[in-house]
Amino acid sequence: MGAGLAGQRVRIGGWVKTGREQGKGAFAFLEVNDGSCPGNLQVIVEADVYKLSDVVSTGTCIHVEGELHLPPEGVKQKIELKVKKVFDVGTVDAGKYPLPKTKLTLEFLRDVMHLRPRTNTISAVARIRNALAYATHTFFQKHGFLYVHTPIITTSDCEGAGEMFQVTTIISEAEKIEKELKENPLPSETDVAAAELDVKEKGEVITQLKSSKASKEKITAAVTELTKAKEHLSKLNERLKLAERCRVSGGIPKKDGKIDYSEDFFARQAFLTVSGQLQVETYACALSSVYTFGPTFRAENSHTSRHLAEFWMVEPEIAFANIEDDMNCAEAYVRFLCQWLLDNCYDDMEFMTKFIDKTAIQRLVMVANSKFHRITYTEAVAILEEAAKVRKFENKVEWGIDLASEHERYLTEEKFKAPVIVYNYPKAIKAFYMKVNEDNKTVAAMDVLVPKVGELVGGSQREENYEVLRDRILELGLPLEPYEWYLDLRRYGTVKHSGFGLGFERMILFATGMENIRDVIPFPRYPGRADL
Amino acid sequence: MGAGLAGQRVRIGGWVKTGREQGKGAFAFLEVNDGSCPGNLQVIVEADVYKLSDVVSTGTCIHVEGELHLPPEGVKQKIELKVKKVFDVGTVDAGKYPLPKTKLTLEFLRDVMHLRPRTNTISAVARIRNALAYATHTFFQKHGFLYVHTPIITTSDCEGAGEMFQVTTIISEAEKIEKELKENPLPSETDVAAAELDVKEKGEVITQLKSSKASKEKITAAVTELTKAKEHLSKLNERLKLAERCRVSGGIPKKDGKIDYSEDFFARQAFLTVSGQLQVETYACALSSVYTFGPTFRAENSHTSRHLAEFWMVEPEIAFANIEDDMNCAEAYVRFLCQWLLDNCYDDMEFMTKFIDKTAIQRLVMVANSKFHRITYTEAVAILEEAAKVRKFENKVEWGIDLASEHERYLTEEKFKAPVIVYNYPKAIKAFYMKVNEDNKTVAAMDVLVPKVGELVGGSQREENYEVLRDRILELGLPLEPYEWYLDLRRYGTVKHSGFGLGFERMILFATGMENIRDVIPFPRYPGRADL
Repeated sequence: MGAGLAGQRVRIGGWVKTGREQGKGAFAFLEVNDGSCPGNLQVIVEADVYKLSDVVSTGTCIHVEGELHLPPEGVKQKIELKVKKVFDVGTVDAGKYPLPKTKLTLEFLRDVMHLRPRTNTISAVARIRNALAYATHTFFQKHGFLYVHTPIITTSDCEGAGEMFQVTTIISEAEKIEKELKENPLPSETDVAAAELDVKEKGEVITQLKSSKASKEKITAAVTELTKAKEHLSKLNERLKLAERCRVSGGIPKKDGKIDYSEDFFARQAFLTVSGQLQVETYACALSSVYTFGPTFRAENSHTSRHLAEFWMVEPEIAFANIEDDMNCAEAYVRFLCQWLLDNCYDDMEFMTKFIDKTAIQRLVMVANSKFHRITYTEAVAILEEAAKVRKFENKVEWGIDLASEHERYLTEEKFKAPVIVYNYPKAIKAFYMKVNEDNKTVAAMDVLVPKVGELVGGSQREENYEVLRDRILELGLPLEPYEWYLDLRRYGTVKHSGFGLGFERMILFATGMENIRDVIPFPRYPGRADL
Repeated sequence: MGAGLAGQRVRIGGWVKTGREQGKGAFAFLEVNDGSCPGNLQVIVEADVYKLSDVVSTGTCIHVEGELHLPPEGVKQKIELKVKKVFDVGTVDAGKYPLPKTKLTLEFLRDVMHLRPRTNTISAVARIRNALAYATHTFFQKHGFLYVHTPIITTSDCEGAGEMFQVTTIISEAEKIEKELKENPLPSETDVAAAELDVKEKGEVITQLKSSKASKEKITAAVTELTKAKEHLSKLNERLKLAERCRVSGGIPKKDGKIDYSEDFFARQAFLTVSGQLQVETYACALSSVYTFGPTFRAENSHTSRHLAEFWMVEPEIAFANIEDDMNCAEAYVRFLCQWLLDNCYDDMEFMTKFIDKTAIQRLVMVANSKFHRITYTEAVAILEEAAKVRKFENKVEWGIDLASEHERYLTEEKFKAPVIVYNYPKAIKAFYMKVNEDNKTVAAMDVLVPKVGELVGGSQREENYEVLRDRILELGLPLEPYEWYLDLRRYGTVKHSGFGLGFERMILFATGMENIRDVIPFPRYPGRADL
């Protein structure tokens, strides 16, 4: 806040970062922050306005009105607030507060996920994350892309690779059944025999009534009785069947030894999406330029600082675009994001640069202003082979390998010292939907590599030729049936199209210089942890 | 496209809506659409430029270059394109195309979900949905709210109401185990007995070696042998245990008769979120004004035209705000959305008004320009009781009931003929986190009701008093433990705060006049259906 505001009366609310009583208990200085920016406001409370010991603890929430003053010369603050009126105070018992003033590690903060946004680092990351999300929408909207909400629950497996979370109600249904069976006694054999006898007798009554030419009313009444008896019997049998099911499979419905998903919520097995790409293609093949931005999931038992079970992806898909258009779009988007942070989040970036990563701002400036280098996979391998003569890679380099993180980082951090796009990867290491190049050895895939994180973007031109796509699916041993709808996009009015995916948390790691992906998403999910 | 562009050479791509050969096969007229707007471009292809029969079928994709011309006077088009060069054509076999030119019902289109964005109605809805999403971000960003990604996978149940989808890997793990057991023969009793004997003998060997004071090397070797034998035995027993688990519970790990979730991915039971509210409150209680906008889920066996298993919600949360601030925010937001559509999507709104709902534009204009009526629940009930004297409601009206849809629609559509906010609902019918009013009978909750859909927004001031909140949780028979983190927000630096949720698909129904919620989300999920 600037000095120009001096003299104004304002109402503010925020949380005390630090507070101290001064002048022998005559007044207190508070550093107050409301989360809107990294800077604090200095607030002065006098003892006759409020009980000082109730406002000085770190974490206290205050909602007050006061007058802005120029502070005495020689202090760092540009302006300070002298409190005139206190509306609300949310106190803190300093002895119990889980976030004491001492410097806390990011690892410690992961165990107090609900309070960690009150720290300087996590709140700065939250503002940068917000800025990157809005920049994403702004970029694509400006360029005529439509935002499409692809489904979270899916019955397709984009990568054909498994590692998906299952979404089901079949266990809770089974538990309901088990509970009910425990609470209410099962019918005994005698009960069933009695019910069967009852059905038999009531059937005989009808036969008798009919042969004795009884009145219609009497027969109808007897039929009603029989129906009731039959219903009762079938209920008993149904309960016995459920009890048997509970005995054999814990209440889970089974058929031919396998779980019978026809009884699950969606009448088939359902999963959390690993990518919205295949689905968003249906919209690209109708509305031209589209993108999806949403959560994606991997049930990978991975404990690294680079993997989450739930993470966000930005996936544009562009009709009438080839791999070059795709690279142009990815480059323009990433550079836009960097420039956006410099324009809209500079104070937070200064915080990151000061406390987390000295090169954070420098990296943004570099990427915002660099034309990305573009090399083929084959060229990349040649460069790496050359490098391998004078330095050691842990993974052997040869044509055909999937580039390892160390290779990607060598290219972008050491060789080019700038973002690099590697394109035309070997067909054998890439997904079935990527366009096969004329050499029949490579596909029109591309990865954008940036310093600090390596691969930031992965994309490709999609195979738009029906026969080639079908053959690729079969070649990889995948079944055709689940992809028939995807093949339809090529059967009817097929179109050349391309797209890519940007890992949103990777972009935040890149921008902030943070080391662990668990600290750049508000509520990280990983093996063994899904707090809140 | 305007007449002013005549004479320009342009490249266009799109899909043929209708096509016909003319002039005895000399040329073809195509109506082409690229999804960017409801209007088509008239495209003329001459027979010497391309084979006409390959471009006239509905659904054909063309990518061409040509010259824009003014059409002959008296036709409705403002401009037409004469094709000079054809880059690509994606053909359609008209006999097989699932979307023939004839008018298709929305119900039919739900069975061809991957192609329906090519229809006029679904593409207009997609553009309106996109506009509302971007308007949402723009509104909140403009007002200093930070976008927070709340988790999709959660271990908290916001409403305490159940009806949640379970997220698990426990079934797929069990299936892996079952498969493995089937593929490899189980150890027989003889195998186990032999392994046990082996362990026993190898133990005895060691005893003997020790008593005969054998060399250290010999003893060490014997110990290694014993360890191996023990490992072998424990593997056999492990497999038998798994086999027993498969027999009793289909491979699902159990403990004390219940599923043992410590073996699940997150080491506890996990679900899909029903609301991001509780989690986003942790950010509001640190960063002041925040919002979440993401998918939410209900495993409700509901087959109506108003319910989905997966739907999107906008949930702002505002620190230092009371119920009145909350109502002001909701009103400003809804009016902003309406004005945004009038400003940015007028041609699509004209389409909806012409083909779906005559009053669609009128409704937007009305809401954008109306101050919302505000009445207490008690006043609403009085109005409804008065109305019930002269008209029939299916649900009885009396103080204490949850207003039914018919009541809500009476208030907004008949009584006020404008949006209405009802606030201060009976405590007994509302959630535990809503602020208890001084009367101790009502809570500071509010619903925004609008014509056509009834409840569009539901919100409340949150209970910020620790003791009151804790007592409410206990009063409702909920356990305290899962809410300890939520109570912490009141224990440490508590703050008055409020928020609301807007059902995004309801907003689209309201705006477009569409009748079925399954048609306003790209990939609807409901009982028995999760296509793609």
